Amino acid sequence: MKPSVIALLHGPDQPGIVAKVATWIHQRGGNVLHADQHLDRQENVFFQRVEWEPDADRNLQEESDEFISFVERELTMQVRIALSEDRPKVAIMVSKADHCFHDLVLRVRAGEWNAEFVGVLSNHQELQSVSESYGLPFVHIPVNQQNKVEVEQRQISWLREQGVELVILARYMQILSSEFLQQVSCPVINIHHSFLPSFAGAKPYHQAYQRGVKLIGATAHYVTEDLDEGPIIEQDVARVSHRHGPRELIEKGRDLEKLVLATAVRRHLQNRVLDYQNKTVVFD
Amino acid sequence: MKPSVIALLHGPDQPGIVAKVATWIHQRGGNVLHADQHLDRQENVFFQRVEWEPDADRNLQEESDEFISFVERELTMQVRIALSEDRPKVAIMVSKADHCFHDLVLRVRAGEWNAEFVGVLSNHQELQSVSESYGLPFVHIPVNQQNKVEVEQRQISWLREQGVELVILARYMQILSSEFLQQVSCPVINIHHSFLPSFAGAKPYHQAYQRGVKLIGATAHYVTEDLDEGPIIEQDVARVSHRHGPRELIEKGRDLEKLVLATAVRRHLQNRVLDYQNKTVVFD
Amino acid sequence: MKPSVIALLHGPDQPGIVAKVATWIHQRGGNVLHADQHLDRQENVFFQRVEWEPDADRNLQEESDEFISFVERELTMQVRIALSEDRPKVAIMVSKADHCFHDLVLRVRAGEWNAEFVGVLSNHQELQSVSESYGLPFVHIPVNQQNKVEVEQRQISWLREQGVELVILARYMQILSSEFLQQVSCPVINIHHSFLPSFAGAKPYHQAYQRGVKLIGATAHYVTEDLDEGPIIEQDVARVSHRHGPRELIEKGRDLEKLVLATAVRRHLQNRVLDYQNKTVVFD
Amino acid sequence: MKPSVIALLHGPDQPGIVAKVATWIHQRGGNVLHADQHLDRQENVFFQRVEWEPDADRNLQEESDEFISFVERELTMQVRIALSEDRPKVAIMVSKADHCFHDLVLRVRAGEWNAEFVGVLSNHQELQSVSESYGLPFVHIPVNQQNKVEVEQRQISWLREQGVELVILARYMQILSSEFLQQVSCPVINIHHSFLPSFAGAKPYHQAYQRGVKLIGATAHYVTEDLDEGPIIEQDVARVSHRHGPRELIEKGRDLEKLVLATAVRRHLQNRVLDYQNKTVVFD
Repeated sequence: MKPSVIALLHGPDQPGIVAKVATWIHQRGGNVLHADQHLDRQENVFFQRVEWEPDADRNLQEESDEFISFVERELTMQVRIALSEDRPKVAIMVSKADHCFHDLVLRVRAGEWNAEFVGVLSNHQELQSVSESYGLPFVHIPVNQQNKVEVEQRQISWLREQGVELVILARYMQILSSEFLQQVSCPVINIHHSFLPSFAGAKPYHQAYQRGVKLIGATAHYVTEDLDEGPIIEQDVARVSHRHGPRELIEKGRDLEKLVLATAVRRHLQNRVLDYQNKTVVFD
Repeated sequence: MKPSVIALLHGPDQPGIVAKVATWIHQRGGNVLHADQHLDRQENVFFQRVEWEPDADRNLQEESDEFISFVERELTMQVRIALSEDRPKVAIMVSKADHCFHDLVLRVRAGEWNAEFVGVLSNHQELQSVSESYGLPFVHIPVNQQNKVEVEQRQISWLREQGVELVILARYMQILSSEFLQQVSCPVINIHHSFLPSFAGAKPYHQAYQRGVKLIGATAHYVTEDLDEGPIIEQDVARVSHRHGPRELIEKGRDLEKLVLATAVRRHLQNRVLDYQNKTVVFD
Repeated sequence: MKPSVIALLHGPDQPGIVAKVATWIHQRGGNVLHADQHLDRQENVFFQRVEWEPDADRNLQEESDEFISFVERELTMQVRIALSEDRPKVAIMVSKADHCFHDLVLRVRAGEWNAEFVGVLSNHQELQSVSESYGLPFVHIPVNQQNKVEVEQRQISWLREQGVELVILARYMQILSSEFLQQVSCPVINIHHSFLPSFAGAKPYHQAYQRGVKLIGATAHYVTEDLDEGPIIEQDVARVSHRHGPRELIEKGRDLEKLVLATAVRRHLQNRVLDYQNKTVVFD
Repeated sequence: MKPSVIALLHGPDQPGIVAKVATWIHQRGGNVLHADQHLDRQENVFFQRVEWEPDADRNLQEESDEFISFVERELTMQVRIALSEDRPKVAIMVSKADHCFHDLVLRVRAGEWNAEFVGVLSNHQELQSVSESYGLPFVHIPVNQQNKVEVEQRQISWLREQGVELVILARYMQILSSEFLQQVSCPVINIHHSFLPSFAGAKPYHQAYQRGVKLIGATAHYVTEDLDEGPIIEQDVARVSHRHGPRELIEKGRDLEKLVLATAVRRHLQNRVLDYQNKTVVFD
């Protein structure tokens, strides 16, 4: 396949956006592969994802830069650009649970996603040897009540050195401070083991058991300062019954967590997600 | 099919319950059709649903009465008995929305359930003519801030006169007082238009839209004094996206509400539900 | 809401289609509400659904006619146009089963769909009184081995007199001849009570029981000359177990059939479906 | 937890089976943990799964042997016994695809199942190093048109030497002969990448794409002499659209295959599956 450019635009609605974008691409010899759009009528905000193959003679970087200028100046909208050949650098943060970790790494190794996993950060040592068997650097920084600020600084330094463009919390059982989130300067995706907003906080499967729900859920979301309150990218549920105690819910939930996190990460890596006012627009 | 007896038992676990129950039935010439059980190991409570065809010579009422005595005296457990040929009397309470109403009535008319719908109670007049076209008495009692106590008394009187054994709130938009619930002396099933415990209270679809969830839900539960907190009988969800505004969620939710309420009512009418410590055991 | 125009285009892919369509609309003062597209890379066929509000000064019919000319002449693609305010005339064909029939009629009465149900054709009399209670003309034409050709002629005559634009087979248990399909000159949607291509033909629930499948399905499709082989619009499944005999499968299947048929009809009425080479492109 | 005994019984229905089984266990001081049953009314065959903790003084093997004698002699039914502490020996057969392979091995390593994976048989070398990194012996026997009989003999020899009690075909792309199936003398579970009986045989995702189905599926079944015709243990589906070409169906199908195969294997290992007349009774 020829390389393509993917643009995610959003801004106040105005007449002719679709025509102007499509004409801009067409006039430069580009061929639109996919285009999807959404108009939030309550907020009057227009969103678009457009993917095109530029003319063979065009330099991809030039095409991207000029498109950004065009959108910002002539449409006064915000835009984010990615190239189909990009392989963003991704770091995984884990504690002890390994099911999401294996699932993510095996997907990258199977070639499902265009991404480069650069390493694993953990507050525990349990996943060190398995990370290394996958050829992934493992950075172990224990956390306690006293050293949290310092630990986060070391994590930030490492993530920056690696040039990380996405952080995945694959059942990382620590809360990240707002300072961390401001400094990391790339998106952070978390998997919460409940159908948010139900059962936010600790031990969601125990809460679910206590309430006697008939479905358990998992939620993948961008991390914001408000714990378990960030924009939701994906959710799914599985049927349970009175026969499932907390232990069975935890086991059953593992498959759910793997699938929901993988779906969210796939969408993010394919540049299908725009977040806006604590919600997401997912073009799929 | 020959008539059968269905018993729902529960109480502290003890050795030999299954053997004693099965032997009691076998010795009187009965033939067990279904038997299902559950042991809550945390609470050490044993639950059983057993359905059997008594010997052809036995009187069904006698068999039932003697079984109750046996369970209460020899097993010191609680038991509820139903006969397969029972057609419990059911009342529906509605406001203006009619989707669950039609769905329930058409299922009874199609012979899906063994039940007799005896009439419709409403605080509005919208569903009067359609109720009557189905041959169902329609009792219209308007509610306002002042007359709530009196209205509930009239409702209770009517329900008792009819000998109602189950009340279904098919999108009845009023809160029932704890006095009502004590006096009605039969189960009340409600459909809440969210995946509880998320979005309890008013306007759940608007809350769901605001939060940006990727699935909407519906929950059928027994009504208790605590609003939207009763034992859950059934839940289900449907996938939504950023394209769905509150109006689309409401429309999409209608199908969900119909199915979830119908499933809960079916299970109740088939004597498959035991509620215990604000949860349900559903034998299906 | 202001009235809008919906166009469904398809034809050989070529550079600039999206730009040309969007520019055509924009230059005439139109505002694109939704646009979705698909490129079948194997066949090199481009599909688009675009919905727009024309300028307030433009006559809707004029806008539509000129757009059709534009697409056919300048893009040499095929196009179908609908107006958001259209209320297409729909006829339902039934035999004895009434679950899909009630479901469809109640949705139209609830205002879910923009359509006018003009009457019911049946080879049996069972649904006559209920059709009439809904205010729907009921045309009863019994079918037997000998009179099939003549019956279809009478059906065709009636459908034409009414100006029917969509025929729904809501569990109509007769096979329509290829002559009927040619002469009816409007789409015909059928609900088949299995997950096609499994269990085509008669008694699919019995076939499913015999094979021991763990999910049963339903399939809504456009009717073509090849029985159960037409383009699939929608499918869904429900979980079953060894406990479900043929009778339980039939009962459980009813809910599935209602939902799958309703979803297919909704998509068709919203002009979201293009059929092509015995498959459908569904823009939703 | 104390060790328990699990029995799977089936045979012609007769009065008092439940009572006799429960009484036998109770009289020897056993405590029934779970009991589930099914009566196939068409065939008049009774099925039961019962799990109990024997009295602490009883030898498990003795309890099992005596129970088998009791069932065979006094109930003249067939019975299969397992102990909760059993760790059956399992072999995996693979070709090149590794997604189901990783999924199965990681579940065993995570302690989800009580089983011992003894090795991997393959007609290709692709999964050799990864098998060995998991500490699993890898037996590579290339297959061609000429050597099929001989290869199967070598496979059978190896499986017997290892004492294998379950063979899992984790996307093994060779057909096993009826001689192999007779000689292997243990159950063989296969994952077929379609919703059987649709798309049996080769390249099911291409067949599904060609037919334009709206859901793809996967089916786990016991292998019999008739290809893709064995008793189904588990099936599931995933939604697809016109946007999914064969390549996307294959990728999307991988998650489905992993989950369906894992569910089937879990049920088998937990002794929940009885196969009978080419169907399964699954007690879950």
